[in-house]
Amino acid sequence: MERFDIAIIGTGPAGLEAAINGKIRNKNIILFGNSDFSNKLIKAPKINNYLGFNDISGIELKEKFQQHIEAMDIKINNERINAVYAMGDYFALMVNEKTYEAKTVILAIGMEAAKPLKGEEEFLGRGVGYCATCDAPLYKGKVVTIIGYNKEAEEEANFVSELASKVYYIKMDKGDSSLNENIKVINDKPVEISGESEVKSVVMKNGTIETDGVFILKDSIAPNHLVPGLELEDGHIKVNRAMETNIEGLYAAGDCIGKPYQYIKAAGEGQVASLKAVEYLSKTK
Amino acid sequence: MERFDIAIIGTGPAGLEAAINGKIRNKNIILFGNSDFSNKLIKAPKINNYLGFNDISGIELKEKFQQHIEAMDIKINNERINAVYAMGDYFALMVNEKTYEAKTVILAIGMEAAKPLKGEEEFLGRGVGYCATCDAPLYKGKVVTIIGYNKEAEEEANFVSELASKVYYIKMDKGDSSLNENIKVINDKPVEISGESEVKSVVMKNGTIETDGVFILKDSIAPNHLVPGLELEDGHIKVNRAMETNIEGLYAAGDCIGKPYQYIKAAGEGQVASLKAVEYLSKTK
Repeated sequence: MERFDIAIIGTGPAGLEAAINGKIRNKNIILFGNSDFSNKLIKAPKINNYLGFNDISGIELKEKFQQHIEAMDIKINNERINAVYAMGDYFALMVNEKTYEAKTVILAIGMEAAKPLKGEEEFLGRGVGYCATCDAPLYKGKVVTIIGYNKEAEEEANFVSELASKVYYIKMDKGDSSLNENIKVINDKPVEISGESEVKSVVMKNGTIETDGVFILKDSIAPNHLVPGLELEDGHIKVNRAMETNIEGLYAAGDCIGKPYQYIKAAGEGQVASLKAVEYLSKTK
Repeated sequence: MERFDIAIIGTGPAGLEAAINGKIRNKNIILFGNSDFSNKLIKAPKINNYLGFNDISGIELKEKFQQHIEAMDIKINNERINAVYAMGDYFALMVNEKTYEAKTVILAIGMEAAKPLKGEEEFLGRGVGYCATCDAPLYKGKVVTIIGYNKEAEEEANFVSELASKVYYIKMDKGDSSLNENIKVINDKPVEISGESEVKSVVMKNGTIETDGVFILKDSIAPNHLVPGLELEDGHIKVNRAMETNIEGLYAAGDCIGKPYQYIKAAGEGQVASLKAVEYLSKTK
């Protein structure tokens, strides 16, 4: 399997700047993210504090970024990474059943505004998961609840419904759904995941579902769920000034490492993370 | 005397980005530096790693920065700060005999490539100084040597020559000089400053000058000489991730706080320093 030098997760300013620096240093990089780069960026009406661009809209700045990465022939892979495992001298990045390998990883995953549900962290690995397709075999003939925030979550639900005895889908986004007919769609707000040694139910505002498993499928995953063993501090990924996390070869940059949540701050950190990863690669060669 | 909210020293990307953020937050800022911004920047042939600008020259990027700060009505004061003193609830910034006051200070002074001379640090305050006009009265009727790197150094030498019995000028830059006739110009390379309890001589490659005082007048001053009591680490100003130095209200950003020496890294740090200074101002109000 091809082993990349640097895998970058996230296409906000931190991830893009990391990719640019890796590419300039002739590293074999792979960049995972969104072709719109960052929802936060494209929704910004006016940006005045990104040095070099006065009074620019988020959309315009996004276009400048796009021109830059296209000129450097940097491509965005829009698969969603579910988990990153430190394997010693490399990292395994999981996209459902698919795996990528990289010698170093830069997390530039932004900041998920939503707090975890009550019970979510407590029951993680004991009925709560973030990748339905990965864990589906465990739920053959059982009842599964999916709390879905996007289209991909519906696809995962459809897959699970072929194995599980029953699938509930708590729909968190708006718009049409393309769920299989055997899936029961629930329009309610989840409040708590409860159980004893394992998950037993999802409590919602207006009712309770008895269930054997719960998958929470958001656009992004809390960093310590994405990377088992990753150290956090005050809800952000803990890094030093070299953007090194507690795991060797793993770096982080941008909103996910702390405030202020600002574009050029994130870009600067992405650059440092990337150059430090390059340094690490030359040392471990 | 007018007391500024934020004084920023340095007009590289870190200082400019700090100024922009201070201005946006409606702070009363003063920016000290060079109207060319940064020698390093304008000499850069090609820059590819500043996200948003692909394949741009240093001169072009400088123009983008200039348009940005002019649009925000940010002015550059080109006086050279010789010393910054922490006075408790404010800072005193010295420009020869003139003083500015500011509640917070951001050092974005870049990195002086030249190492200190042998003996320079040892005799600092015991015959070695960085502001000839400040200390000139101490050398009335005595012999003074000035190691001068720029035009301003020549002006200082002329001033000192009115008081001192003898002034030697070791000329480190190229081009014409406009020194008074009673100043002895020396074209040699200084190697060491020596003495016992106080300075006695400057040793050069091809000779030695007996002298009572030595002034070293460069474009920038080592940070711990600029700010007495400032903590360094491996030759850079020591800061945490909030860009806070060991002195309350004093921040630093850019090359002076460490590698990599890169533009967008510096700009990002300038932003963090500025927003942290703003936070500090609102807390101490």
